[in-house]
Amino acid sequence: MAYAYWKSGRVKDVAVFDLFFRQNPFGGEFTIFAGLGECLKFLQNFHYSDSDIEYLKTTLPASIEDEFFVFLKHLTTNDVTVYALEEGSVTFPRVPLLRVEGPLIVVQILETTLLTLVNYASLMATNAARYRLAAGKDVRLLEFGLRRAQGPDGGLSASKYSYIGGFDGTSNVLAGKMFHIPVKGTHAHAYITSFSNFSDLQTKMLLDRITGDEKDMLQLSLHWRVPLSGLLDILTDEASDGELAALISFAIAFPDGFIALVDTYDVKRSSLIGCRSGLLNFCAVAMALNDLGYRAIGIRIDSGDLAYLSNKAREVFVKISHKYNLPWFAELQIMASNDINEETILSLNEQNHKIDCFAIGTHLVTCQRQPALGCVFKLVEINGTPRIKLSQDVVKITMPGRKDAYRLYGADGHALIDLLQRAVENPPEVGARVLCRHPFQESKRAYVIPTRVEPLYKAYWSGGKVRDPLPSLEEVRLRVQSSLQTLRQDHKRNLNPTPYKVQVAVSDDLYNFIHDLWLENAPIGELS
Amino acid sequence: MAYAYWKSGRVKDVAVFDLFFRQNPFGGEFTIFAGLGECLKFLQNFHYSDSDIEYLKTTLPASIEDEFFVFLKHLTTNDVTVYALEEGSVTFPRVPLLRVEGPLIVVQILETTLLTLVNYASLMATNAARYRLAAGKDVRLLEFGLRRAQGPDGGLSASKYSYIGGFDGTSNVLAGKMFHIPVKGTHAHAYITSFSNFSDLQTKMLLDRITGDEKDMLQLSLHWRVPLSGLLDILTDEASDGELAALISFAIAFPDGFIALVDTYDVKRSSLIGCRSGLLNFCAVAMALNDLGYRAIGIRIDSGDLAYLSNKAREVFVKISHKYNLPWFAELQIMASNDINEETILSLNEQNHKIDCFAIGTHLVTCQRQPALGCVFKLVEINGTPRIKLSQDVVKITMPGRKDAYRLYGADGHALIDLLQRAVENPPEVGARVLCRHPFQESKRAYVIPTRVEPLYKAYWSGGKVRDPLPSLEEVRLRVQSSLQTLRQDHKRNLNPTPYKVQVAVSDDLYNFIHDLWLENAPIGELS
Repeated sequence: MAYAYWKSGRVKDVAVFDLFFRQNPFGGEFTIFAGLGECLKFLQNFHYSDSDIEYLKTTLPASIEDEFFVFLKHLTTNDVTVYALEEGSVTFPRVPLLRVEGPLIVVQILETTLLTLVNYASLMATNAARYRLAAGKDVRLLEFGLRRAQGPDGGLSASKYSYIGGFDGTSNVLAGKMFHIPVKGTHAHAYITSFSNFSDLQTKMLLDRITGDEKDMLQLSLHWRVPLSGLLDILTDEASDGELAALISFAIAFPDGFIALVDTYDVKRSSLIGCRSGLLNFCAVAMALNDLGYRAIGIRIDSGDLAYLSNKAREVFVKISHKYNLPWFAELQIMASNDINEETILSLNEQNHKIDCFAIGTHLVTCQRQPALGCVFKLVEINGTPRIKLSQDVVKITMPGRKDAYRLYGADGHALIDLLQRAVENPPEVGARVLCRHPFQESKRAYVIPTRVEPLYKAYWSGGKVRDPLPSLEEVRLRVQSSLQTLRQDHKRNLNPTPYKVQVAVSDDLYNFIHDLWLENAPIGELS
Repeated sequence: MAYAYWKSGRVKDVAVFDLFFRQNPFGGEFTIFAGLGECLKFLQNFHYSDSDIEYLKTTLPASIEDEFFVFLKHLTTNDVTVYALEEGSVTFPRVPLLRVEGPLIVVQILETTLLTLVNYASLMATNAARYRLAAGKDVRLLEFGLRRAQGPDGGLSASKYSYIGGFDGTSNVLAGKMFHIPVKGTHAHAYITSFSNFSDLQTKMLLDRITGDEKDMLQLSLHWRVPLSGLLDILTDEASDGELAALISFAIAFPDGFIALVDTYDVKRSSLIGCRSGLLNFCAVAMALNDLGYRAIGIRIDSGDLAYLSNKAREVFVKISHKYNLPWFAELQIMASNDINEETILSLNEQNHKIDCFAIGTHLVTCQRQPALGCVFKLVEINGTPRIKLSQDVVKITMPGRKDAYRLYGADGHALIDLLQRAVENPPEVGARVLCRHPFQESKRAYVIPTRVEPLYKAYWSGGKVRDPLPSLEEVRLRVQSSLQTLRQDHKRNLNPTPYKVQVAVSDDLYNFIHDLWLENAPIGELS
């Protein structure tokens, strides 16, 4: 296509494209914009290498003129300007996330990469933000999804954008290294099953933190298992010795970071519930660690009825805490994993779970409920002339021309509406009445008197340079939360959220501009 | 976890892990195994770099002994052996795709990456193979999904594994360059809308292939639009001049590769159908090209009723073919895009569509119907001792021990059953009766007399080396189709496919082995 533009002599043509989506994902009423940082890095590094050009020569038809490859070789993004929302902002359908201006050919070449960089990033950040809203701010959320992502690099994007969206850490160590995201993990079931019995325990000794003496953790744990067995009403027979050996070895390796998977020998029998072996063994090792001056972190439950098991575990921890006067024991962390999604969390909330931390993989990284955000890239102006794409489907009609966007805030400080205007219009003013119109339904319109007007676009790329230093991942992450706070609660709820006004409002001027162009371009049919 | 193993002195422990999934994706009865090539490359390149170790030192607790980092620095995969199915094979739930043997610590460190490399690759190849089955072998399938993938690298994996699964090409030029996959694309709607009228056409001339004379393509196309308008019953008024200008410029750039998007000005009015402007303009340009000795390729339709429009377009092509005695014109390619998935193709088949080529993006690369294959990695043996993981859920019980797998074929040449055996058992023999049992249901068993026995595993990695040269992408792609051919048609159909016998069969010996271990490991409860 670039060659066709070039061959048509359209090298000097200048175009404006909007990158936007038409529908919020996950049945929700908001989207988080992410991926801008990667877009800017892409613009910075954009060029055709010699090997790219060699390859293109082999795949494009032999009739392609050599000069075109010279043209490609010297192609840069220096004449491109990118306006964008701030990364991490809440946004809505049809408000362009990026407005990309510049040489038609170059901008068209950028299309697919910009879409790729924004689509999944925004989808993932939105998904993560929804999990955060569902879980509440006091619960820790960890991303455990690498194994189910679209390959290793898909996994890195997942880690990065779920952190931005509000997760607290990842199990992906490379993501930790590359993006400075906190890395958290526990052990696997295989760690437990790799120990058959006490003879697999080659090291039993741990230094007492206070006295510095070596103590026998196996002896101490076995010693504790007896009274705890009575207290918790779990027979020591029910507890697996292989599991105890595994937990002891893990505690010796990480005396200050002891977190144990407790459902490996989770065999439900008659009226008994699972995790009994794991709970008893964990508590015995945690008490042994306590004897030596260390505090355990907690447990992970990876199967079964998470609400019920977390309550049982919390009861057990409270019981021990009271009996041995160890207040911190009641606060031991309960982590849950196992195929968790947004609905699971909401359902667990209703059942008053006692989980402090969710580790979430598959549903988070694949965005199972809707694995793609449908961002599109549409031409809206060329050489100063607005372009409109008509469609049988009104929602697919593009908004022509170079536009600016403003967020108007109401008296209570919440965002009221996003308004698109022609770029030549004056910005809306605080305290002045603004007519906001539905772009396609004539009768849908409202006056708004904003208490605050936030211009949504900033030029992030122009003259071949990133205009401001890029915000850190931390800053973008904070922006997500502060931006979400400007949104009324009812827009954010999971079930039947209130729509954020019309899809997007347009100014009266833009409304007329669209409809004039529409009439001008739509052919008149004949009834037959 | 690696540190805990190390600290427990388990450096010499040797383990066997199975990598497998428990359910076929997409409600189907088969899965394509892919990703082995990448796994082997990963094993080849596996090491901890100095910067990795520096990073780990900053994230792991300060109590970690320095010697452990020295240990990591010298860690290799030289003592690991990987047995696997042939990449591109049809496979079934619970038959391990990989059997990974070697030092417990190393194998455990490999877990997540191996899962990542196999999960999406197999899911994607399976999805692509299903599209191929739905579309039939004569329709071309192109992957157009980069913009909806999990970032640029997710997109590369999507291109690669959809090619393996049976697609014919991709729109991802980098995938073409890296993997030698045929690259195909068309132009975008923006190309059409960037032309307003004939004055945007800066070059109108094209060389006559025969005479070498320069001819005016605009004049020729306009000339052709008149008789074609009558023949096709489309008014020249209905055809957009901007669109014609765009198509002419594209034809001049790619006279031998002229394929046109025909639905840009697709406005449905009264009884008329869309694409009328595009069809008339395309045919006019195609006839103009024909005058100069070039043959157009075809059209792409990106909206509307694809079955109806493809039939209309084919009628138009046939009409012109007859009228002007140009047999090839009747065969012009009709490409369809726009949110196509497996069900769309099946439904279009029922409507007798006339589409030659589908360009598929979102649903293909995100595997929307099921965006993750649930591969797991389970410990089955340690230091020669089998390990079993029990679960309340029978499907989650692991198959203990080092196992081999065989595919048994019936008299008609189709695959009958996959049989798992203990590695110490003799392979099944052609013509000899083999007792095949359901692993968990005692009464489900059958005798099979195989006409062919295919050992499924081969050692692909041992002694720090890839054992055989890796097959090319082409070879793996062929393997997918030949492997699918061994499967009976009813296992492959989209609606209610016949299950491939039991999930997986086990030999009588393995059956008893599993159940003995199960009893040995399951605690006995008390009724209360």
